[in-house]
Amino acid sequence: MPTKNPTKVTAEPGTQQVVITREFEAPREKVFRAFITPELLLQWLGPRGMKMTIDHFEPKAGGSYRYVHTDGKGNSFGFYGVIHEVTAPERLIQTFEFEGLPEKGHVSLDTALFESLPNGRTRVTMKSIFQSVADRDGMVSSGMEKGVSEGHDRLDELLEKGIV
Amino acid sequence: MPTKNPTKVTAEPGTQQVVITREFEAPREKVFRAFITPELLLQWLGPRGMKMTIDHFEPKAGGSYRYVHTDGKGNSFGFYGVIHEVTAPERLIQTFEFEGLPEKGHVSLDTALFESLPNGRTRVTMKSIFQSVADRDGMVSSGMEKGVSEGHDRLDELLEKGIV
Repeated sequence: MPTKNPTKVTAEPGTQQVVITREFEAPREKVFRAFITPELLLQWLGPRGMKMTIDHFEPKAGGSYRYVHTDGKGNSFGFYGVIHEVTAPERLIQTFEFEGLPEKGHVSLDTALFESLPNGRTRVTMKSIFQSVADRDGMVSSGMEKGVSEGHDRLDELLEKGIV
Repeated sequence: MPTKNPTKVTAEPGTQQVVITREFEAPREKVFRAFITPELLLQWLGPRGMKMTIDHFEPKAGGSYRYVHTDGKGNSFGFYGVIHEVTAPERLIQTFEFEGLPEKGHVSLDTALFESLPNGRTRVTMKSIFQSVADRDGMVSSGMEKGVSEGHDRLDELLEKGIV
């Protein structure tokens, strides 16, 4: 199914940030809910072909989360972070760390803004800032764009089916 | 009392980060303890002339903190964040937000590294990354350098007195 709302990933050379934008054919209350509800995240977050399990997910200021993606070969990829702010339906701020990096302590700060557009549509803008340009470049070259974009396509499908 | 270990603040133009370094005449276990122990933080964190109170402070991964500085005129300044990692005695990673900004949601990610030096000395390197260059510039121009440096001088005094 071709999507009419592509995910755009912007990573200006030499900066420590990545900005990801995507529009959705649904009001922001729904889209926001899809980003903070564990049963929904399990159905869309991450690339196709991954099975996701949630270790814990506390969508509130002062909460934390950890989830694991497992591919068809049984390889597991863990992600962990703490949640700085949850302001429904407009803003999420949290840390993010991929546990599979060679060294612990490489963390980004992720801010997601949910903006209402005309005709019941929503724009989500996610900015990730990294501890160094090298860390940012490593994340971009890891195939992040494909995984994020496929996740958004899956969220489109949930919205179309009325599951969210 | 003149200090022989000045606090250095580096903010390269156009970047989203500030790097602060300071050396201390004490082993890193002690210095690290001073950074995560509420009763000690109350005695050194922040500029002279401020009274500090701690709303809560949970020095562990998944914890959070909030504290307030009050000046002699009764003006209060609150600070809040979540704690991503506490790896004693070498690394702390947490978020940081000054509650007095005109708009909520302007947050930095702060990483502090504690490095052992010869002769029982310690170097602390603190890197803060911001959501934008403008946010970084705002923090630098707020008088942060004086407050951080005075706090480190106060920590020196606690170490000299054997309180830490």
